[in-house]
Amino acid sequence: MGSDLPEKGLVLLSSWASMFGIRVMIALEEKGLEYEYWGQDLGNKSATLLRLNPIHKKVPVLVHDGRSICESLIILQYIDETWPGADGASCFLPADPLARSRARFWADLIDKKITDAGANLWMTKGEAQAEAKKEFMESLKLLEGELGEKPYFGGETFGFVDIALVCFASWFHTYDVSGSLNMEAELPKLMAWVKRCQERESVSKALPDPLKVYDFMLILKKRYGIE
Amino acid sequence: MGSDLPEKGLVLLSSWASMFGIRVMIALEEKGLEYEYWGQDLGNKSATLLRLNPIHKKVPVLVHDGRSICESLIILQYIDETWPGADGASCFLPADPLARSRARFWADLIDKKITDAGANLWMTKGEAQAEAKKEFMESLKLLEGELGEKPYFGGETFGFVDIALVCFASWFHTYDVSGSLNMEAELPKLMAWVKRCQERESVSKALPDPLKVYDFMLILKKRYGIE
Repeated sequence: MGSDLPEKGLVLLSSWASMFGIRVMIALEEKGLEYEYWGQDLGNKSATLLRLNPIHKKVPVLVHDGRSICESLIILQYIDETWPGADGASCFLPADPLARSRARFWADLIDKKITDAGANLWMTKGEAQAEAKKEFMESLKLLEGELGEKPYFGGETFGFVDIALVCFASWFHTYDVSGSLNMEAELPKLMAWVKRCQERESVSKALPDPLKVYDFMLILKKRYGIE
Repeated sequence: MGSDLPEKGLVLLSSWASMFGIRVMIALEEKGLEYEYWGQDLGNKSATLLRLNPIHKKVPVLVHDGRSICESLIILQYIDETWPGADGASCFLPADPLARSRARFWADLIDKKITDAGANLWMTKGEAQAEAKKEFMESLKLLEGELGEKPYFGGETFGFVDIALVCFASWFHTYDVSGSLNMEAELPKLMAWVKRCQERESVSKALPDPLKVYDFMLILKKRYGIE
């Protein structure tokens, strides 16, 4: 991997297990965009990553024609606005402002509630883990309620909230085992939605093997000295 | 205050000292929109607030024709998209996707870094306060760097990041005193920007008296039993 970014085109800096990086991979695939993938070792951050995202120092970073864009939901909106649909409208977000605000609300909820609670399912024990379990399952039940009987959060269309949430699917096995969640029984509609999403090439290509993610979690636990 | 929302028009549920509510007030004023203001007692949340924002249970909530929109940055984008400028373009966010992503990045940074650090300046002491001071000042210096020599974060135009940050201005005195920050000397360009923003009627009308905010902070400290 060189550290010289191409002047033109798309480069994605990410790490294979990063759900936020997976979001961007799905979005790029959905738009049919070609890009270079620069895998990052988050245990030893590259000078390129630190230069492109000096404030958060995190993946994913999307570089387009040499300019970097950070924060996955912001990147999704950038992709959607830069490569809109054939009719000029964005694809991931609906056209109606109220529907757009609703999609943004749920995506924001995923970032605020699912991310930390999910991590705490395997990073903590006892009371902290029980609290994470409660928050995680309550939030997913709210999301399942929002999905309702629709095929996708975007209605008939796979959209912004679908991408924002399905990126966690490879981690569900790890969360399920670590937190004794029984997601399959507790969240049947949401799990059916995951399978529906996985029929899309964009999603199946981007999502890593859940067992590989589980092994990676075990490595992370060792690295962080978590019992 | 009635609890029956009007079928048509705009209602803002907020609390006078809420910086997030102030954001929405500024945005509504900038667009020249009339609205009803329903002040909320956050120590005793109304059934209306809990019904309109059942997940976060927070102000601000904007109700438009009976439909509620939550989370201040999402509300700003809703207002911008529902009442665009005369040319059909949004006003708060620029037209260019890269510039839009940049504005969203900085607004997101404000929510992630300034909010909690600001609160911890008066809610904590010792090491926790010192850490809050470091994060608060570092983040504001980054923002001052982004402002540079421009009159506004939006360039010549008062925009999304300007609204997202200037709503904190009434709290700066409280932060300054609580954390011994000396913001005036440390952040001269940012403080000049605050004064420039305050020349706008939208901002001066929405921002409460900093001394009233300081007294309110003392009341909150008593209420929470903070020494």
